[in-house]
Amino acid sequence: MARPARIDMEAFARWHHDHAEWARVENGGVEALEKRFTFPDFATALAFVVRVGMAAEKRDHHPDIAMGWGKATVLWTTHDAGGITELDLALAEESDRIRST
Amino acid sequence: MARPARIDMEAFARWHHDHAEWARVENGGVEALEKRFTFPDFATALAFVVRVGMAAEKRDHHPDIAMGWGKATVLWTTHDAGGITELDLALAEESDRIRST
Amino acid sequence: MARPARIDMEAFARWHHDHAEWARVENGGVEALEKRFTFPDFATALAFVVRVGMAAEKRDHHPDIAMGWGKATVLWTTHDAGGITELDLALAEESDRIRST
Amino acid sequence: MARPARIDMEAFARWHHDHAEWARVENGGVEALEKRFTFPDFATALAFVVRVGMAAEKRDHHPDIAMGWGKATVLWTTHDAGGITELDLALAEESDRIRST
Repeated sequence: MARPARIDMEAFARWHHDHAEWARVENGGVEALEKRFTFPDFATALAFVVRVGMAAEKRDHHPDIAMGWGKATVLWTTHDAGGITELDLALAEESDRIRST
Repeated sequence: MARPARIDMEAFARWHHDHAEWARVENGGVEALEKRFTFPDFATALAFVVRVGMAAEKRDHHPDIAMGWGKATVLWTTHDAGGITELDLALAEESDRIRST
Repeated sequence: MARPARIDMEAFARWHHDHAEWARVENGGVEALEKRFTFPDFATALAFVVRVGMAAEKRDHHPDIAMGWGKATVLWTTHDAGGITELDLALAEESDRIRST
Repeated sequence: MARPARIDMEAFARWHHDHAEWARVENGGVEALEKRFTFPDFATALAFVVRVGMAAEKRDHHPDIAMGWGKATVLWTTHDAGGITELDLALAEESDRIRST
């Protein structure tokens, strides 16, 4: 599967308008998308991490995740492309879907 | 921690009246509680299993679980007591709580 | 992705010769492959189930799993094909690899 | 269960001598223990996180974890005690045991 190219700024701005909770951050010199999710306890946070992990395996594209009691922060970027791609947007949306179900 | 004794039939009947979705089954000659849960896909079923597993570790009391695409069946019994105990009822209720959140 | 067809008996016999721990069983009228794995405790069994689940998501082909304290039984079959396919053999081997690492 | 008090410096030094791979770090103004574990891929890293999470639930004491492809960093501290306690040492050792099995 061909890796998608970096998304252009205009397309990103449109997406970001609808997904403003995802912050655009720098991660080791590369642009990334990051969002913090909160949970009622440790077990629900870990179950979310497992589900995001399964979605990542399915697409063969893996996030960085920081988690603790009642919280998990997910960061998506595409190192090969040097920034944010369509695949990152798709998996950010998938992370939101997982949180809401 | 002392293991609870088998619950008497009257107390079980009261509990079962409010939790009728849990079936009383025989499992290797021992009475057990069993319920089938359904899910929209494999990943949500597995995340449920992980959460039930964490609740089990917390109480040091472990179920038998059968799972597949969109489904998970949880069975609680207390082998040491030769049947269903208060701990099984508590973890059956916890399984329901996990499913609903 | 096209689903593989049922494997022919000769090819299966060759594979089975090298993977004799996988039993050929009937599952709802359909041939399946099944193996029981054992573990030192509940947590290691559940971690195995999670890894098999991630491999399943990756290939979009999902097993039935029965687990409990120190044990997990994995069953692979391809319902669409009405029996065992190359994909089942590949995921049975992947299950073994997961157990051994 | 009474929470353990902060470990004294001499006892910590003895423990640290035998567990030098755990770094003593500051985490939000509180001393903590941190170690980075590496793995062959994403799935094995996530399975490790799940097992550490189950150990955490069992002891009702939860780490911060950062994970990504082939890596997981675990941080133990006891906020209530304002630093590192016997419970943190026990769970750091448990994390090592999980990694090695």
